[in-house]
Amino acid sequence: MPNYHDELDAVIRALADPTRRAVVERLAKSPAVVSELAAPFDMTLPSLMQHLGILEDAGVVTSEKRGRVRTVSLRPGALDALQLWLGEQRTPAERQADRLGIHLIRHT
Amino acid sequence: MPNYHDELDAVIRALADPTRRAVVERLAKSPAVVSELAAPFDMTLPSLMQHLGILEDAGVVTSEKRGRVRTVSLRPGALDALQLWLGEQRTPAERQADRLGIHLIRHT
Repeated sequence: MPNYHDELDAVIRALADPTRRAVVERLAKSPAVVSELAAPFDMTLPSLMQHLGILEDAGVVTSEKRGRVRTVSLRPGALDALQLWLGEQRTPAERQADRLGIHLIRHT
Repeated sequence: MPNYHDELDAVIRALADPTRRAVVERLAKSPAVVSELAAPFDMTLPSLMQHLGILEDAGVVTSEKRGRVRTVSLRPGALDALQLWLGEQRTPAERQADRLGIHLIRHT
């Protein structure tokens, strides 16, 4: 199993491309077959498959092939490492604001 | 002012490098002068300045020069666009778990 920093690195690199982010946005709604994912993009199927390969290697998506149809899903928890890292980079002033927010959720 | 997607793109690209992430981690604790930021890295000052330039162009950090000393700070809210985007990419199952979490904060 890759460590936290390797996982984070792979996830950020995978997301540092607008096509791959658009694929993630689509998959957050529901799993999709490859032809559906390809439809909105003006790119060849091999190019899209390459983007999907990068997302899958980074653990952001998983895919399953049944017969000739490959279905791609967002991997649950795939973006947790990045969310956790971002949470750790809050400045002292931001952390204070976060605590106020939790206080308001608890008491309103 | 750049739009949400351009800002997101610049921030993710800026964070897609382990040296720049290490700089962000250091600055989350407190602002620092350039020589302090350079100390942990085995790189020339011009290379570090290039990384700082990418972080500053992306709006992740700001810097201020007084005399010969440049102080670098994490920009408050710098990572909010990325955190917001990640929040939007939660699958239906994850959203349900999030609601349960908020319920538990409210009622425990």
